[in-house]
Amino acid sequence: MSGLFHDLENLPPGAQVAMEDLLSAAKWNDDGLIPAIAQQHDSGEVLMMAWMNRAALEETLSTGRVCYWSRSRQAFWRKGETSGQQQHLVEARFDCDGDTLLLQVEQSGPACHTGRRSCFYLRLSPSSAEIDREPLMSPDQLYAGKR
Amino acid sequence: MSGLFHDLENLPPGAQVAMEDLLSAAKWNDDGLIPAIAQQHDSGEVLMMAWMNRAALEETLSTGRVCYWSRSRQAFWRKGETSGQQQHLVEARFDCDGDTLLLQVEQSGPACHTGRRSCFYLRLSPSSAEIDREPLMSPDQLYAGKR
Repeated sequence: MSGLFHDLENLPPGAQVAMEDLLSAAKWNDDGLIPAIAQQHDSGEVLMMAWMNRAALEETLSTGRVCYWSRSRQAFWRKGETSGQQQHLVEARFDCDGDTLLLQVEQSGPACHTGRRSCFYLRLSPSSAEIDREPLMSPDQLYAGKR
Repeated sequence: MSGLFHDLENLPPGAQVAMEDLLSAAKWNDDGLIPAIAQQHDSGEVLMMAWMNRAALEETLSTGRVCYWSRSRQAFWRKGETSGQQQHLVEARFDCDGDTLLLQVEQSGPACHTGRRSCFYLRLSPSSAEIDREPLMSPDQLYAGKR
């Protein structure tokens, strides 16, 4: 591994790098995207994972409201714009090699389109998977009058 | 969205699905991979994100020791095999649409190749990023005599 992220590995706490340089060195995939993990900032619950392009990340950092890139719709996805269940950014981090983002967020209500708090409700065992929770609200309630 | 994961959305807690069906319906990317988030099971700290193919996930579920697929080495990556810092699986989950895994793990020592506990040590602000922690041990210590 080489480049900016490699150079940062040995810098002491408090060392800073300009955002422009970091975003240029980040490992956007062939579609210009990086996966972003959303974690509820106080409980630590991992809520969902979605994707961001550079513009979505820049908007998120400047507005404090989380904006993803929807791969299915090929459009910006400002979390909560149809459901009303917004994600507000508390803190964003890159990982060591610049190919993943971790977002600490304040999520209002369900993060999942099924009405569950988190998207990770399918618990695996070696031979089967089990649904482990009910929705907080039905998708009909979640999107009532909003789509 | 259609298919098995869509059908599971409305099932009640306790409903089960066979692993074979789930793995066949999971949304492996063009390289046959799915991102896997590793979270320390008790503290909730997100440690890293890496990738798994189907065989790596099956091995992880059956052995209880986390095995990723290394995209750079194009080989199985049994976490800790060179550093000694193993990841033991506590629980694995799929997300609602079957394109992301969340692993609750017991991580011994650093998860990051830089010797830090977590890979997410680059905290972002709108204009800059800051390194926010020191390594627990140097990479030389981490890999001493092991590579």
